[in-house]
Amino acid sequence: MKHQTIYFKKCPTIIATSTIAGTKECQGIIGRYVETALSDDMFGESTYEKAECKMLSHVIDGAITNAGLKRHEVDMIVSGDLLNQIVSASFAARDFSVPFLGVYGACSTMAESIAVASTFIDGGYCDYAVAATGSHFASAERQYRYPLELGCTRPPQSQWTVTGAGGALIASKGDGIKITAATLGKVVDYGITDVNNMGAAMAPAATDTILTHFRETGESPEKYDLIVTGDLGALGSRILKDLCWEKGLDISENHIDCGEIIYNVIEDEFQGGSGAGCSAVVLNSYLHSKMMTGGLKRILFVATGALLSTVTSGQGESIPCIAHAVVLER
Amino acid sequence: MKHQTIYFKKCPTIIATSTIAGTKECQGIIGRYVETALSDDMFGESTYEKAECKMLSHVIDGAITNAGLKRHEVDMIVSGDLLNQIVSASFAARDFSVPFLGVYGACSTMAESIAVASTFIDGGYCDYAVAATGSHFASAERQYRYPLELGCTRPPQSQWTVTGAGGALIASKGDGIKITAATLGKVVDYGITDVNNMGAAMAPAATDTILTHFRETGESPEKYDLIVTGDLGALGSRILKDLCWEKGLDISENHIDCGEIIYNVIEDEFQGGSGAGCSAVVLNSYLHSKMMTGGLKRILFVATGALLSTVTSGQGESIPCIAHAVVLER
Repeated sequence: MKHQTIYFKKCPTIIATSTIAGTKECQGIIGRYVETALSDDMFGESTYEKAECKMLSHVIDGAITNAGLKRHEVDMIVSGDLLNQIVSASFAARDFSVPFLGVYGACSTMAESIAVASTFIDGGYCDYAVAATGSHFASAERQYRYPLELGCTRPPQSQWTVTGAGGALIASKGDGIKITAATLGKVVDYGITDVNNMGAAMAPAATDTILTHFRETGESPEKYDLIVTGDLGALGSRILKDLCWEKGLDISENHIDCGEIIYNVIEDEFQGGSGAGCSAVVLNSYLHSKMMTGGLKRILFVATGALLSTVTSGQGESIPCIAHAVVLER
Repeated sequence: MKHQTIYFKKCPTIIATSTIAGTKECQGIIGRYVETALSDDMFGESTYEKAECKMLSHVIDGAITNAGLKRHEVDMIVSGDLLNQIVSASFAARDFSVPFLGVYGACSTMAESIAVASTFIDGGYCDYAVAATGSHFASAERQYRYPLELGCTRPPQSQWTVTGAGGALIASKGDGIKITAATLGKVVDYGITDVNNMGAAMAPAATDTILTHFRETGESPEKYDLIVTGDLGALGSRILKDLCWEKGLDISENHIDCGEIIYNVIEDEFQGGSGAGCSAVVLNSYLHSKMMTGGLKRILFVATGALLSTVTSGQGESIPCIAHAVVLER
């Protein structure tokens, strides 16, 4: 097996971020770090999908503005989302006259887009790139499960798709958070078929990428202030820590999960938050703030994605998952 | 506006390709160049979607084998497809224990995946990457239009989604076809809303990328043996040539379109072929062969994608499109 970890010699830098989140999300501990708090989850649009797209467009624009840049100075937008044909990202990119690379990694998109954008910048192919993603509870429910209007009951192992989006402006130079390495994930499938139990499905992929990262870099978990997973939720996080522990790696001291911390009262949202917007919002608001001014020096950001569709589940397939990791340093 | 064209100094090289195509596709002039001709478009599977996934897995494996490599020597698979949540690519990647980057550019995926893989290789981050995509007529009809079983009539401006897949093994060194530059496309939307007229929707995006390419590189169309678009079809190709001509660029002498040439009797397929598999099959079979042994020295490969979904069309949106270009030299 070749190495899965790549090292960025020139250290592309997150010089600005932007976030937006829904009313429910902003009631949590992350709320006060979110740049734009929605008072209406429709964001003034007529459909959930258009609201999701508008949120993504909002944070792409916000990241550019917060970096003190103009749109024409940006080389590239790297983005994707959960909707079929990543239409939120594509339609958001339509608002910007900037080259666009569409990516799909389900809820791992924030880490994937950072890794891809960082590679283009570190290799000297461009100077400014936006990495962004988002999700919307109502559009995700409609597409993956049941339209909200049906009022279906949610099982206790389920998670709540975050309404929100986050974007990072990555630059070849400047002050901010350095991206020093990325461990690209493989597709891992432990045979989970319960589409309401994403945490259990994704935990093995996160385990694989985290174990690979520490094996290849020769580092130990204590070298990170935090090991942050994307949206495993409460149950998935417990599985992750167990799986890592079984393999001789104890991450329990410094692991947090974006899905586990985004909502205040976790009982209402069962296992916590999920969705591409979950880790995008937490990284680009709370974690960004804590790294810039709160003393967090070094984190391993591991976003996880479940690569299923309603068609594959309907055809009896299990849920393949992936996790990509990036090392962020202040 | 920053430059959209990036140049690869070390020239990543396509050292091997692999293709597979359906019965109808193999009856055309491309047929004899296709590595694996299907006698059954189900490829022995129980569903169209599983057949599509198996084709993609087949060409990823084929490209690795044809390059004389083992799976564990490959650093990365960059792939995507047309199905919701790019499940063909994700499930195909499950068969390989290789890092996976999922991309989505609709029918521009072949060019996007080559550009991304080439950037990782040229920057020195990896040595061997597979870029691959595919599509299946029946799964695309079911998802985007109507299930075949309904027997719906197709309008004359429509195209026929290619059943097929193609993959390229891109290496940091070796003999083959050099990738010397890439022009990354912006999302372009001329307001077309007819989901049966992809050629008209995508032609402006192709025009934008081609004009940008020639403006930024300072080259002229005569410097290319061929300017190859992905799947504009007969009507879209005419629109492309007209749009370019209006802007003072005459590409009529050396332009071909993969969708226009893939089928023998174009009347049956209306405007010709389309789908991510269209340009993937033509590039990795016919064009690859002509470049390796047929005297073709230099081509501009411009794959085009329509970034719509059934939801966006249902909500009254027009069709945003994109085109990415790569320069291939022998």
